[in-house]
Amino acid sequence: MKQILFYGLFFISIVANAQQNLVKYVKPLIGTEKMGHTYPGATVPFGAVQLSPETDTISYEVNGKYNGDVYKYCAGYKYEDKTIVGFSHTHFSGTGHSDLGDFLIMPTQGKLQLNPGVASDTKTGYRSAFSHANEVAEASYYKVKLDDDNITAEMTATTRVGMHQYTFPKSNQSHIILDLMAGIYNYDEKTVWTYVRVVNDTLITGYRQTYGWARTRTVYFSMSFSKPFKSYGQKNYDAKQAYRGFWGKFDQTKNFPEIAGRKVRMYFDFDTNEGEKIKIKFALSPVSQENALQNMRSEITGWDFEKVKAQAQATWNKELNKINISASDDDKTNFYTAMYHAFINPTTYTDVNGQYKGLDQDVHTANGFTNYTTFSLWDTYRALHPFFNIIQPARNNDMVKSMLAHYDQSSLQMLPIWSHYANDNWCMSGYHSVSVIADAVIKGVYNGDANKALDACVMTAKHRNYEGIGYYMDLGYIPAERSGVSVSNTLEYAYDDWAIAQMAKKLNRMDIYNEFIKRSGNWKNNYDASIGFMRPKMADGTFKQKFDSKDTEGQGFIEGNSWNYSFFVPQDPAGLIEVMGGKKKFAMRLDTLFTMHLPDEFFAHTEDITREGIIGGYVHGNEPAHHIAYLYNWADQAYKTQAQVRHILKMQYKPTPDGLGGNDDCGQMSAWYMFSSLGFYPVSPGGDEYALGSPAVNNASLSLENGKTFAVEAINQSDKNVYVQKVLLNGKELTKPFIKHSDITSGGKLTFYMGAKPKKS
Amino acid sequence: MKQILFYGLFFISIVANAQQNLVKYVKPLIGTEKMGHTYPGATVPFGAVQLSPETDTISYEVNGKYNGDVYKYCAGYKYEDKTIVGFSHTHFSGTGHSDLGDFLIMPTQGKLQLNPGVASDTKTGYRSAFSHANEVAEASYYKVKLDDDNITAEMTATTRVGMHQYTFPKSNQSHIILDLMAGIYNYDEKTVWTYVRVVNDTLITGYRQTYGWARTRTVYFSMSFSKPFKSYGQKNYDAKQAYRGFWGKFDQTKNFPEIAGRKVRMYFDFDTNEGEKIKIKFALSPVSQENALQNMRSEITGWDFEKVKAQAQATWNKELNKINISASDDDKTNFYTAMYHAFINPTTYTDVNGQYKGLDQDVHTANGFTNYTTFSLWDTYRALHPFFNIIQPARNNDMVKSMLAHYDQSSLQMLPIWSHYANDNWCMSGYHSVSVIADAVIKGVYNGDANKALDACVMTAKHRNYEGIGYYMDLGYIPAERSGVSVSNTLEYAYDDWAIAQMAKKLNRMDIYNEFIKRSGNWKNNYDASIGFMRPKMADGTFKQKFDSKDTEGQGFIEGNSWNYSFFVPQDPAGLIEVMGGKKKFAMRLDTLFTMHLPDEFFAHTEDITREGIIGGYVHGNEPAHHIAYLYNWADQAYKTQAQVRHILKMQYKPTPDGLGGNDDCGQMSAWYMFSSLGFYPVSPGGDEYALGSPAVNNASLSLENGKTFAVEAINQSDKNVYVQKVLLNGKELTKPFIKHSDITSGGKLTFYMGAKPKKS
Repeated sequence: MKQILFYGLFFISIVANAQQNLVKYVKPLIGTEKMGHTYPGATVPFGAVQLSPETDTISYEVNGKYNGDVYKYCAGYKYEDKTIVGFSHTHFSGTGHSDLGDFLIMPTQGKLQLNPGVASDTKTGYRSAFSHANEVAEASYYKVKLDDDNITAEMTATTRVGMHQYTFPKSNQSHIILDLMAGIYNYDEKTVWTYVRVVNDTLITGYRQTYGWARTRTVYFSMSFSKPFKSYGQKNYDAKQAYRGFWGKFDQTKNFPEIAGRKVRMYFDFDTNEGEKIKIKFALSPVSQENALQNMRSEITGWDFEKVKAQAQATWNKELNKINISASDDDKTNFYTAMYHAFINPTTYTDVNGQYKGLDQDVHTANGFTNYTTFSLWDTYRALHPFFNIIQPARNNDMVKSMLAHYDQSSLQMLPIWSHYANDNWCMSGYHSVSVIADAVIKGVYNGDANKALDACVMTAKHRNYEGIGYYMDLGYIPAERSGVSVSNTLEYAYDDWAIAQMAKKLNRMDIYNEFIKRSGNWKNNYDASIGFMRPKMADGTFKQKFDSKDTEGQGFIEGNSWNYSFFVPQDPAGLIEVMGGKKKFAMRLDTLFTMHLPDEFFAHTEDITREGIIGGYVHGNEPAHHIAYLYNWADQAYKTQAQVRHILKMQYKPTPDGLGGNDDCGQMSAWYMFSSLGFYPVSPGGDEYALGSPAVNNASLSLENGKTFAVEAINQSDKNVYVQKVLLNGKELTKPFIKHSDITSGGKLTFYMGAKPKKS
Repeated sequence: MKQILFYGLFFISIVANAQQNLVKYVKPLIGTEKMGHTYPGATVPFGAVQLSPETDTISYEVNGKYNGDVYKYCAGYKYEDKTIVGFSHTHFSGTGHSDLGDFLIMPTQGKLQLNPGVASDTKTGYRSAFSHANEVAEASYYKVKLDDDNITAEMTATTRVGMHQYTFPKSNQSHIILDLMAGIYNYDEKTVWTYVRVVNDTLITGYRQTYGWARTRTVYFSMSFSKPFKSYGQKNYDAKQAYRGFWGKFDQTKNFPEIAGRKVRMYFDFDTNEGEKIKIKFALSPVSQENALQNMRSEITGWDFEKVKAQAQATWNKELNKINISASDDDKTNFYTAMYHAFINPTTYTDVNGQYKGLDQDVHTANGFTNYTTFSLWDTYRALHPFFNIIQPARNNDMVKSMLAHYDQSSLQMLPIWSHYANDNWCMSGYHSVSVIADAVIKGVYNGDANKALDACVMTAKHRNYEGIGYYMDLGYIPAERSGVSVSNTLEYAYDDWAIAQMAKKLNRMDIYNEFIKRSGNWKNNYDASIGFMRPKMADGTFKQKFDSKDTEGQGFIEGNSWNYSFFVPQDPAGLIEVMGGKKKFAMRLDTLFTMHLPDEFFAHTEDITREGIIGGYVHGNEPAHHIAYLYNWADQAYKTQAQVRHILKMQYKPTPDGLGGNDDCGQMSAWYMFSSLGFYPVSPGGDEYALGSPAVNNASLSLENGKTFAVEAINQSDKNVYVQKVLLNGKELTKPFIKHSDITSGGKLTFYMGAKPKKS
């Protein structure tokens, strides 16, 4: 056994040596400015801990009124800000809604201040000014100097443990604050309960339950200091709750080890020498304090910060080396940062002992898989999960298992819509779990009981009380009177139904196939041939009178307008082309989309993107249009796909903090980037086909989990040579701009010959 | 295996046949009127479920002001009331402070009303009028007719499951309400969170966390109907919380199976025929919904209400038959109801799989013992736990183990003070766990590591920051400036320290013995010889100037005055007699106590008792005086002990709802009754001696767990013949009015010869 282990390590070591240093291309600050909503802090691939700075703690309500700024802080950090309030352990990457921000830690020295204070005057609280000049953000490593108190903060992570390292000046009033009230997306009743035990002078455990985007969310923690504190204390900001009962017998504010309440902030005092480092290991668990402690002890032994950082970066390097590209440094930065962002969510939601909290709030054990959470499925079904099916199939298999476990635990008998931390938050539309599951089944990635998975998909798709499904089933569309997003729902359901049909066909469940392939044609019911647009239809079968194909508000669509959504028939582009008047007309409509001028009021109504996230009328910053550039392939104008894809890659992704034109959405924007850079894209997940575009890399080599390698070569590729002249698959020229999934998984080589002029035939 | 089981059952059956029907003497209504604070509902011995009616739901605050009535409802039910609001599953028995009242169920029919309404007009809500004429309360069985809707409610229980049986009239609008807001000792923020899943049309699971007397208390449940409901719904009374996030996509008010929030009331609808019975099994768990379900399935299979009731009553009968007495029917009623009340708390706090929630809020497994909770130790260390050491030693052993597990889980490193449901509520004074543990060790009942138990006692007794212990250790008393209960604390600590010393002596830990036997003399520091009373002492060593030996307010005592507390040296009556001027003077002081006239303002300041709970200046309704009547034995006037004990037995315990003169206090008042009726009492637990009094039974036979029998015979005993003429132990006359614990556990017979005239020598 030991010998096997030895050779195993030896083997890993060889492989590691063969790996390039790709971590250097990861710039976590990309997307932290404006609308990207990424965070710069430390996490490992799919890690349960995301340890990252918060630059403000914004409340959803200020004086009882809605505060629109709340959504700016989905990831906690805004590059534009000048102050840091602390470092917390959970963050979404790239979402447009928000939650998390658990267990904020802030080191200070001098007079203790337990309030965060205001950004305009850092002296009002524990927050500190900082500057980007003193900031380093790498994969699994973040460092910043906190100017106010001259403290250097560093952080790294393992899967379930965040490690902090604070370098203090000499002080007999050094503090580490643990703010249990802080969080992302706050309002007065957000924190339901916190409980903390000071076990000894280096160990603290506890939990926090919040009622936020997730309704019943509890996170347990275990926190360990590298050096005993000399004293500690807390303040309970809920005056009414603080001293009910006979707890008043104790002075709970100082050195009192059993703490609970809704509004608790704690602090730990230290004497520090000049340059002394105090380190913290902070482990999370969805199950218990005990599991958090076990996670901590399993994942980090000792206090070697540099070693933990090196291991974390080695883990990233291993993941990043699954694709080796040759490209410009900027393109490599974009590519590997995209890969980094794509490998953050979904996050691990299993303790080292295999336990996790289920949707039913019971503790479950994941038998034979890692349970994941944070499924932003409306976004990620499009390209992220298909990307995983190529480059992370084992993980995607586990993700599908996690979704099916969620289904088993659902009293509603529904697959996840947008799930995080043992909750569904029901955000966005469709039932896109079925797309992810179908894609994994079709592509042979899911190794569980596919028939049971299909049953879960069917049950979800027939949930009559959810979002108009009953109307959709009865009428083939959702009456505009019944829903403000009746058209996008119908279009998305129709696509999802097609995915179910594909899975049913593969499993030879023809009754289901027949039912759902029929349902997949429902998109036609919202197509108004008289104007050539998808349009809300009333219960009486007439189209809604008042209608603007450019507007995104009140027109029956979510995060998009009819101009974009009218192309949302990924399951049947040929059928769409037919109703739209044939290939030529269709291609002209696409041309118009990419060149039209949208008035400013259109942008004002569009969520989650910057002005730059729009090309003509094409909105890349939101997801519904992500497949559109590839539709030229079906209209015999593949060269326009090639041009547009390269244009989008250049315009929408830049290696700068403001480089993302819209929310990264848990990696969907990044997955689009990688697919498109590699020259192909899954227009319709659940099918086994990829549409070819125009590779932006010179070469790429994909190391697959089955041991095979799939290579992409783009001969003569350059910023000018964006047009594909011919494509060879394993030396054989392709006649159509499509490849199959098996072409990739079998290993081989896809060779693009590029040129400056479009090849129009 | 089967054969063994068969013979086992056969054997139990024989024993059962030999048992008397003693359940008939149990009148759970005793103590439900005025100050007894008992409840009339269904529970099995030491059961985790106490299923009992609530006659009101009183809030601690009304319009932001304290509502003094809240403490009337410690047990949920007041005999004086005319309406019932429902039946909930957890109740304290006899406490003076309150909490619990989890998961209130109420059957109604006709128009649905989800508010409880007001007592003055039952039509305002779901509550109903009832009358005692239609009420039956037996051990493990409660029945009442709910007049408003003509529904008969019946309930019984197993250890962890409450079983309801509701007999409805014919109605197509029959409802069963599950009120998750209701509780005992309420205020707006009491319910921290509730979570409910409707698993299918007969099964519901969930949990509720409350912040009450216990700060972080979570109870999980599993609820099963005998008949599928036709529909169900809920109302969330927290408008702000009800529809945050995207849950608004659903109509959560009707047939929606995933419910959560702070203020939830649910209902389940049925069609019922005339006389149709709908039954509910309602299981609790401290750990999880899953465990609650497992508890339910383990303890009740099927729906035979009568069978569950019969089994529960058989369990009671088995426990009650541990002591067989011959006495008048009224005395038997008093005795067996006292025994019933003594066998309710502490309650089982372990699931059938051995799991429980610890003080540290982690899940633990009780290895080799049943974990108990609800330790009202300031009360129960006096007579209840000593009583258990005779008649329930196995359970008391487990209770000690439960207390030591609590200690292991305590970040404060303290044994329980007043603990319930994985919390300490810190109510009352002293550290009387040490008395219970010492008594169990001294009497050979505790079979664990006694040295470790001693260490826990010592650590608790040296917790300098708790309730003046630091001052006590430094000065030998607590300065009056530092505590409003400085004298009673010093007196109680000194007694507890003596108990620790006894245990240390037995374990040959002489350093600890020496330290604590010295501490046990600290009572002398508060004795003001100039006035002959225990009196608050200032930090400078002078006695507090302003002092009234009769007043209970602001004089340095908790629940008592100096007149009573000056006798609180149970560990050293001889020493007390000495400082008080010798036996004669001492006995005269006792005479005065029992005959003095206390003004009404004294009573007004006295908590938790009725006017009748006082005899002269002796306050039996509160515990600190419980040993006093026996002190005459040390002053060579045992005949006065005999007279007073019989007087107290008659005056303070009556077989009527208002029969208890003060809070039963988790069985302490009842244990006093049983000991005193049997003719002996443990004046100083931790010692192995019992003081003899005057038996009120004619005969008693105690069946001990070691298989031996200890008999008490009181020849010529009658209401007039209260004086002991002579006492024989196993035929040998005693020369002193004391026996030893081993005299009981060795088996044998104690024969009292009674007469009408005192025997003064």
